[in-house]
Amino acid sequence: MLGRIYHLGYAVEDIDAAARFYAENFGAQPSEKEVVEEQGIVATMFRVGESQIELVQPTRPDSPVGKFLAKHGEGFHHVAFQVDDLEAALSDLKGNGVQLIDESPRIGAGGSRMAFVHPKGAFGVLTELVELPEG
Amino acid sequence: MLGRIYHLGYAVEDIDAAARFYAENFGAQPSEKEVVEEQGIVATMFRVGESQIELVQPTRPDSPVGKFLAKHGEGFHHVAFQVDDLEAALSDLKGNGVQLIDESPRIGAGGSRMAFVHPKGAFGVLTELVELPEG
Repeated sequence: MLGRIYHLGYAVEDIDAAARFYAENFGAQPSEKEVVEEQGIVATMFRVGESQIELVQPTRPDSPVGKFLAKHGEGFHHVAFQVDDLEAALSDLKGNGVQLIDESPRIGAGGSRMAFVHPKGAFGVLTELVELPEG
Repeated sequence: MLGRIYHLGYAVEDIDAAARFYAENFGAQPSEKEVVEEQGIVATMFRVGESQIELVQPTRPDSPVGKFLAKHGEGFHHVAFQVDDLEAALSDLKGNGVQLIDESPRIGAGGSRMAFVHPKGAFGVLTELVELPEG
């Protein structure tokens, strides 16, 4: 049911330095930076095979990623897996008593539907499930 | 130069519970557990697209993963990227002053060659590079 790793999210203090690191050492081609003000982040991503690495810097310290950085420092933040049927996946997880952050899908970038499983429900890993729009 | 995400390593306290979680909720098919005594771990893996998730439980508290768990608790431990030419990748990283754990390749599972970049050299993410044997 997990189709692929859709992306890994890395929390960083300096998105330009991190993007340069992956470009210079690994030939990565990071996208234009995008500010998502309601999440309090600026993000860029680059492709690795069928997956992407998303570099995320907070725009304010009280945003979720800002708080994460203050507590944990830079590093892995979350993984997103593509699923075919997000409603069914959430229903299974709820039925099995797994702790969720989002009990029903939210709309994400490009019309995708996404939801987070709580890290306490997934052995310490903040896990996002993504269902892409058809076509 | 990063061909794909080869695997994600998750550190867990109870490998059987974690494997059951992914099997029951996501239809994952974890491999037989394998003890790697010199690393002080027992591991199982399951496929997600072109990548694998590796669940790792320490067999002793003084192993690297045991110490990681004591310090950080369960969760993401490392990411491994496949590269075509590990020597060239390490040479570039060294030339650019990136902090490495392994300055030259080690032999890993199935005759693969692998090396770790220090998390301090990669924005807090313990990053493994893997070159697979030909064929």
